[in-house]
Amino acid sequence: MLPDKDFKLPEDLENMSPAELENLAKDIRERLVDVVAKNGGHLASNLGVVELTLAMYSFYNPYKDRIVWDVGHQTYVHKILTGRNYEMDTIRQFEGLSGFPKTEESVADSFNTGHSSTSISAALGMARAKRMTGADYKVCAVIGDGALTGGMAFEALNDAAQTFCDMTIILNDNGMSISRNVGGLSRYLGKIRTGKSYTRVKKKVKKVLGSIPGIGRHLVLLIHKLKKSIKLMLIPGELFEDLGLGYIGVVDGHDIKAIKKALEKAEKKKGPVIVHVMTKKGNGYKPAEEDPALFHGISPFDKETGKVKSCSGKSFSAAFADKLTELAADDDKISAVTAAMPLGTGLEKFEHKYPERFFDVGIAEQHAVTMAAGMAICGAKPVIAVYSTFLQRGYDQLLHDVALQDLPLVIGLDRSGINGQDGETHQGIYDFAYLCHLPNTTVAAPCSIKEMEDMLTLGMHVFDKNNDPDIHGCFVIRYPAKERITERNGLLEYSPVEYGKGAVIFDATDGGEADLCIMTAGAIAEEALKAAEKLAETGVKVRVFNARFIKPLDEEGVLKNAADAKYVITVEEAVEFGGFGERVRLVCHNNGINTKIKVIALPDEALPHGKIAQIQHIYGLDADGIVAAYKELINET
Amino acid sequence: MLPDKDFKLPEDLENMSPAELENLAKDIRERLVDVVAKNGGHLASNLGVVELTLAMYSFYNPYKDRIVWDVGHQTYVHKILTGRNYEMDTIRQFEGLSGFPKTEESVADSFNTGHSSTSISAALGMARAKRMTGADYKVCAVIGDGALTGGMAFEALNDAAQTFCDMTIILNDNGMSISRNVGGLSRYLGKIRTGKSYTRVKKKVKKVLGSIPGIGRHLVLLIHKLKKSIKLMLIPGELFEDLGLGYIGVVDGHDIKAIKKALEKAEKKKGPVIVHVMTKKGNGYKPAEEDPALFHGISPFDKETGKVKSCSGKSFSAAFADKLTELAADDDKISAVTAAMPLGTGLEKFEHKYPERFFDVGIAEQHAVTMAAGMAICGAKPVIAVYSTFLQRGYDQLLHDVALQDLPLVIGLDRSGINGQDGETHQGIYDFAYLCHLPNTTVAAPCSIKEMEDMLTLGMHVFDKNNDPDIHGCFVIRYPAKERITERNGLLEYSPVEYGKGAVIFDATDGGEADLCIMTAGAIAEEALKAAEKLAETGVKVRVFNARFIKPLDEEGVLKNAADAKYVITVEEAVEFGGFGERVRLVCHNNGINTKIKVIALPDEALPHGKIAQIQHIYGLDADGIVAAYKELINET
Repeated sequence: MLPDKDFKLPEDLENMSPAELENLAKDIRERLVDVVAKNGGHLASNLGVVELTLAMYSFYNPYKDRIVWDVGHQTYVHKILTGRNYEMDTIRQFEGLSGFPKTEESVADSFNTGHSSTSISAALGMARAKRMTGADYKVCAVIGDGALTGGMAFEALNDAAQTFCDMTIILNDNGMSISRNVGGLSRYLGKIRTGKSYTRVKKKVKKVLGSIPGIGRHLVLLIHKLKKSIKLMLIPGELFEDLGLGYIGVVDGHDIKAIKKALEKAEKKKGPVIVHVMTKKGNGYKPAEEDPALFHGISPFDKETGKVKSCSGKSFSAAFADKLTELAADDDKISAVTAAMPLGTGLEKFEHKYPERFFDVGIAEQHAVTMAAGMAICGAKPVIAVYSTFLQRGYDQLLHDVALQDLPLVIGLDRSGINGQDGETHQGIYDFAYLCHLPNTTVAAPCSIKEMEDMLTLGMHVFDKNNDPDIHGCFVIRYPAKERITERNGLLEYSPVEYGKGAVIFDATDGGEADLCIMTAGAIAEEALKAAEKLAETGVKVRVFNARFIKPLDEEGVLKNAADAKYVITVEEAVEFGGFGERVRLVCHNNGINTKIKVIALPDEALPHGKIAQIQHIYGLDADGIVAAYKELINET
Repeated sequence: MLPDKDFKLPEDLENMSPAELENLAKDIRERLVDVVAKNGGHLASNLGVVELTLAMYSFYNPYKDRIVWDVGHQTYVHKILTGRNYEMDTIRQFEGLSGFPKTEESVADSFNTGHSSTSISAALGMARAKRMTGADYKVCAVIGDGALTGGMAFEALNDAAQTFCDMTIILNDNGMSISRNVGGLSRYLGKIRTGKSYTRVKKKVKKVLGSIPGIGRHLVLLIHKLKKSIKLMLIPGELFEDLGLGYIGVVDGHDIKAIKKALEKAEKKKGPVIVHVMTKKGNGYKPAEEDPALFHGISPFDKETGKVKSCSGKSFSAAFADKLTELAADDDKISAVTAAMPLGTGLEKFEHKYPERFFDVGIAEQHAVTMAAGMAICGAKPVIAVYSTFLQRGYDQLLHDVALQDLPLVIGLDRSGINGQDGETHQGIYDFAYLCHLPNTTVAAPCSIKEMEDMLTLGMHVFDKNNDPDIHGCFVIRYPAKERITERNGLLEYSPVEYGKGAVIFDATDGGEADLCIMTAGAIAEEALKAAEKLAETGVKVRVFNARFIKPLDEEGVLKNAADAKYVITVEEAVEFGGFGERVRLVCHNNGINTKIKVIALPDEALPHGKIAQIQHIYGLDADGIVAAYKELINET
């Protein structure tokens, strides 16, 4: 029986017997698998935190206490327990539950998350506010070992260590980000994990110790020396204790009683305390246990077999990685960099073929960018593949380390545009705005995989000054997960990509003046083409201009096509502020072209979650919206 | 005798006797004090690294090896030693030497720096490139303990720990960022520093040890327990070793021989090694030793007394802090947050008065923003004061944690606009572009301290929904270091600040149609006013419209004043891309106002260093430039 809306926390969990809790955990797991099999979503991480969440809510009152879930994709269990089980079938669907914590959805959601490594910062702010307001609540951040590799988590730990604010930081250690974790910290935690017996040994030793008198500095050093020499140097949590944080661990993350006890103990300690909990991603569902990376974020799948149901559209990510791997065959300086996303960006293919030229730096976009800049300045040819929304973390590094130094770098900007079901925190719609004002930066937006491949080949010219001198600095190629373009009548033959040049890709004007020119940027071209087809069928002379480059914009192409049309509609999957449509407007305004322009772009507000097509439709970013916009233009005149 | 251009490194230093080196160090210090007393610049940090740099260049060849200086303001000694002593008098002057490493200035400058915490990332990239290209060079990053609190430094350490790339990381530990360091890491390093004797003790113990047979896990735990109980837990560098990094330390940073030895030892070790060097900021010049924070970055001063020569203009920073402190007297939820800049932002005043509501989080802008968001969601009223260029680090957090959640936050964005002598890495000219596309964000740009004060009072309304419902979310007030505005004829009486409204501040039109409307954003208004005065004297009917808010822009005011003028010139100290002038253009274009507009803003390129007035002049951002632009407009027509 899953909890209903009247379920009281922590009381109703506190009062359950171990057997009842075990049953509940089982029911929750079943529910998780059912829901995600149907809707897609984050499964492995949720299966991993069933007991952890049950233990937490046997102790905390989530409606009153402030729990911050880092990244937040592991909050399905939390949602089930906090009155939203009946809505779980709507998760990640338009107007349904979000797949991440949302303060507007429930009081139990204390802070919105989505990007990694924010939880300790937010929780520390809450703990500080508590002192200032005199309010009464407990504060807890739940952060994975993957998220702990993000620099801001360290910034927060460093700051927390100097406060006397009481807060608990649950380190949910499963050895994974989305893929297996990397880096020194991960290795450190791994050592702790494999030395579980310490806890038991400790107890025994405690007895023996009794009250041995003071022991000198000499012996400490002696032991240090010996520890090193006999490879026994690790004492769990010493790293955190060195920073000045309390530490309790390692706790079995599937033992409700043990976790609850640890939380109680942490709450009694003064200041920030880390509770190190070891969980298993995908726990309790075999396919997810066996391939937790695949079941991290997954499309709808068959519950019995764990097989993903086929999804349509060719993958830009896979094609990008394929092309890069192909190019790397002829040039051993080409290397690939990812920030904990070998799978999502497709780069695992590259890793497989060229492991020595592949660098997974952890959830560390800042470092990824500057590390790549360091490689580039010494003659290597780094290519980063990263999601648009996560590169936001590297904004300063792109500007300060790459753009201002005019260093060569190629970036495959994946998951650009509307990122449907993950919702507002994952939208790749700010990239035009945060990239186009950087000097020495190119922003290309292919409408098809073929275009993307040619852009990548062209982009690699930044690494060689003997090529086109215009092509230098940072070369960003922006694409969504899936290709959308399809064949159709009126589609012109593919023209090779030229730097800074757009291309007319559809023409139903017989070469004369157009009634309408639709100018598009990127994969959204498909909607422009659909609209053009529809309009052409009704006799409208329509042309589609595919900008290909947002920066440098093909001003000549824009001006010519604007001048040759009665109306212009621009279409982009990005916010209007600082985007493509505005740039078209500015170019026309600066050059005295007065063709009426309608900009279809995303508004200055957080976007809801839902299928990409739904979100496009809401904002007029589909064929219907474009056709309607054309009608409006005519009627306005 | 200071080194000339033919000085060979490392040979010429290697061959010097200790006495000669000591003399050289003395001469360098004198030169440093002379140069900075005259030009202003970074003094204390350079005085602190004289011996360190000498030791480094007795070992490294900076023309071949890759040395990355974190932040880079401590490279004056480096510049003196690498053939630029004869140019030192030009440092920070227009067309002179930069105050930071610049690859275009010398081969010895391996990587441009300016912002904190980038060096380990860049160096790791260089070490990786070395393996790929087969080139032969040593790699070294020099990072302060302050810069080590920045998250990206941790990201880099975490990544470095997993490689087998050879690199040396010199931890230049002086206990300071600009002000005294904060946080758990700092406390940890402090403990190591005060336990210097370890090194000596270690040696003695080593002898005693000889070959004691294996020692069990039990004893390790016993010792751990005891270490804790007798407060003797610290073994230098264990934290770094736990992460998997080599560690050598603590080395006296003013002992050339000892440092050189440590560097040699580090080079022999495999993989990344931290060499922990302890230096004293300001070493050798009494006033700087006594107040290293003041002498961190300083204006020209009197060499004998250490007194700063008077500089003109009232400080926006001081006024911001004063006003905030005043507001905090009536509201104990108001708190101040800084990222290691209590002095530069003026907030030390607040700290002094309300230490329990003041939070210095270290060089950690990412964390600062999200921590403040956590405070805000729990009812505190955080105000962050931060430099425009450094808030670039918090871009994602502003978007993801503040804007998308529509959380209240006030930001005093200091050092906005052209930041003269620090040059390209410190320009506060991207803020309009990186802020205005964030939803739920206000960007205000006061032209005077009085306006700034009123904006701060108004901005605090975000914390109370019972005030104006339009005022919510993140409220950014953008100002430069110094007020520039002066009294003059034609200046209209001050009108109270209204949210999202601009104001005509100068009118020489007799209320009728204007020949020219100059629209300005922020402190640059002074140049607009000067130009307006000049033009008015020659009979031009000119009006100056002070936008006050860039977002939301006073569209009504812009349209009215554009419609009422023959020409519009917009003026802003920001890049044109995504800036104020473009916004004015777009509003006019969208609303069919065809008044000819000239945008004066900064171009899409890195800006050189020099006095603010010089840089303004180059880009036409002064009265002369505005007058010239008006003449062009007339002639074009």
